[in-house]
Amino acid sequence: MTTSAQAAQPSPERIFETLTAFQQTEALRSAIELDIFTAIGEGATTAAALAHRCGASERGTRILCDYLTIIGFLTKEGGRYSLSPDSAVFLDRRSPACMASVSQFIGSAVRKGGTTESADVTTAPDDPMWVTFANAMAPMMRMPAERIAALLDAAAGKPWKVLDIAAGHGMFGITLARHNPQAEVVAVDWAAVLAVAKANAQAAGVAGRYRALPGSAFEVEFGNGYDVVLLTNFLHHFDAATNEKLLHKVNAALKPGGRAVTLEFVPNEDRVTPPVAAKFSLTMLAATDHGDAYTFPEYEKMFRNAGFSSSTIHPIPPSPGQVILSVK
Amino acid sequence: MTTSAQAAQPSPERIFETLTAFQQTEALRSAIELDIFTAIGEGATTAAALAHRCGASERGTRILCDYLTIIGFLTKEGGRYSLSPDSAVFLDRRSPACMASVSQFIGSAVRKGGTTESADVTTAPDDPMWVTFANAMAPMMRMPAERIAALLDAAAGKPWKVLDIAAGHGMFGITLARHNPQAEVVAVDWAAVLAVAKANAQAAGVAGRYRALPGSAFEVEFGNGYDVVLLTNFLHHFDAATNEKLLHKVNAALKPGGRAVTLEFVPNEDRVTPPVAAKFSLTMLAATDHGDAYTFPEYEKMFRNAGFSSSTIHPIPPSPGQVILSVK
Repeated sequence: MTTSAQAAQPSPERIFETLTAFQQTEALRSAIELDIFTAIGEGATTAAALAHRCGASERGTRILCDYLTIIGFLTKEGGRYSLSPDSAVFLDRRSPACMASVSQFIGSAVRKGGTTESADVTTAPDDPMWVTFANAMAPMMRMPAERIAALLDAAAGKPWKVLDIAAGHGMFGITLARHNPQAEVVAVDWAAVLAVAKANAQAAGVAGRYRALPGSAFEVEFGNGYDVVLLTNFLHHFDAATNEKLLHKVNAALKPGGRAVTLEFVPNEDRVTPPVAAKFSLTMLAATDHGDAYTFPEYEKMFRNAGFSSSTIHPIPPSPGQVILSVK
Repeated sequence: MTTSAQAAQPSPERIFETLTAFQQTEALRSAIELDIFTAIGEGATTAAALAHRCGASERGTRILCDYLTIIGFLTKEGGRYSLSPDSAVFLDRRSPACMASVSQFIGSAVRKGGTTESADVTTAPDDPMWVTFANAMAPMMRMPAERIAALLDAAAGKPWKVLDIAAGHGMFGITLARHNPQAEVVAVDWAAVLAVAKANAQAAGVAGRYRALPGSAFEVEFGNGYDVVLLTNFLHHFDAATNEKLLHKVNAALKPGGRAVTLEFVPNEDRVTPPVAAKFSLTMLAATDHGDAYTFPEYEKMFRNAGFSSSTIHPIPPSPGQVILSVK
């Protein structure tokens, strides 16, 4: 049997790889919690030095760092570990782009969802998870927020009333306000979460044009005359009928010609490509009662049923998310 | 920025992929528990038909099957799912090579290990986990067992006394007995596990030459004059000093020129290649207090310190395991 014939044979390898895939998650989370990446960046590069620095056993540290090398987060040369380019930028806490805090959210939210009997964990009022989320996801959302500001031509500086629904960390509305000095932002979310958003608005120098509107997006009075309504990473939590109800309310809040801006993971109609967007559906299965990763035709239909005249979809590479612009 | 320049940029993609890798494990385990693969093999190929057949919700079934398509266990065409070649052979319970039962073991053992405070879950006396293990792993070990029988030239039919330490399902000793009608096998393991091995020996038609010796490998009296001692997937549970103690005892049980046969995941000296063998170290970190995936020089030294004259290592592709033959 030749090597290529062997490769074409059915093999249990992928099954094992998948049944042990959870170890990758646990290893990376452990390393982030031990702050291994920062320690290596600071020069503790042997298992012994890292164990001492991170307060872990040498056996455990060595095995963990070897495993991280195998899965691509470190390199190893003569018993010394170095950071991979991704780890240096995104996992060393000294890096401005560090997203180590995200691991808290991704672990806790999805796991909690997966083990909760039936209650929908993501939409319970004032769930403290969302404060964690707001803090953790802000660094990751900077780039998509910049892309949205560019897509809307915020820098043109027209007088804008912006409504940011489920604002979270607030980065989307704040970024519009930074680029457009004529923009005023109203942010809707639970009160505890809006405290995070307001602090971020303060830090960005836009607090004077930033107003918090605490409560459920389905219940609070939005007001009207908005130029832009932001719906970022929100509609995936609900079924289509619930979304349409909300979108009717959004439509009523917009001025004629105003735009709803949806940021989502949008799979193709086959629902299995592209992989990152299509996989997101499983996260919604685990974390919500009725949520999903909807296709563009599904979103287009929801917006049309809610009174919008047209929707267009815009990739924002390298982010796997896409932006849907829907005009009233 | 060109596409290739973008690809070379540091990206958080791998970090997300890793933080969500546990979903792959959970999806595959769920699909095995729902017996989705058998259902598709039997002709239920739409989400609606599968949901009905497996007693699950249509939303959940559709999202789960889409996810399994994305990670390569199914294909999807016009809303109908088909089994990938690997799934058809290894996950459809109608296939003789089905290893769906393995998922029980891989999940339970490693997770249990990972969450146990300090007790070593794998070596506690009579741990019922090992009965599950014995039943689950037997189908997977058929091929390595055949390779070992060939490596030892069992078919030459010399009179052999074989000691199978931590026999488990018993497939290694049983396979030698099947190929060598002059072989007599003594199997050591916990009593409840040996019941599985004896049933397998009965089914293989070698029960008349198969004797059970219940107890701890560290404590029972092996007897002596053995031609072959099997140490399959066992030494990785312990530290080197403990292994050397056991190997002294094994050496004493062998006749001059007799061979110890070790089946293990053996990483290279860098401990980060080849990936499957090197990753196994993390499983031992999670599941044992002192176990490891040892390199060949480490095993060679343990056997030498225990009185063996030489050790050689033998790959048995496509299995990621390797066989070490050590001569008294």
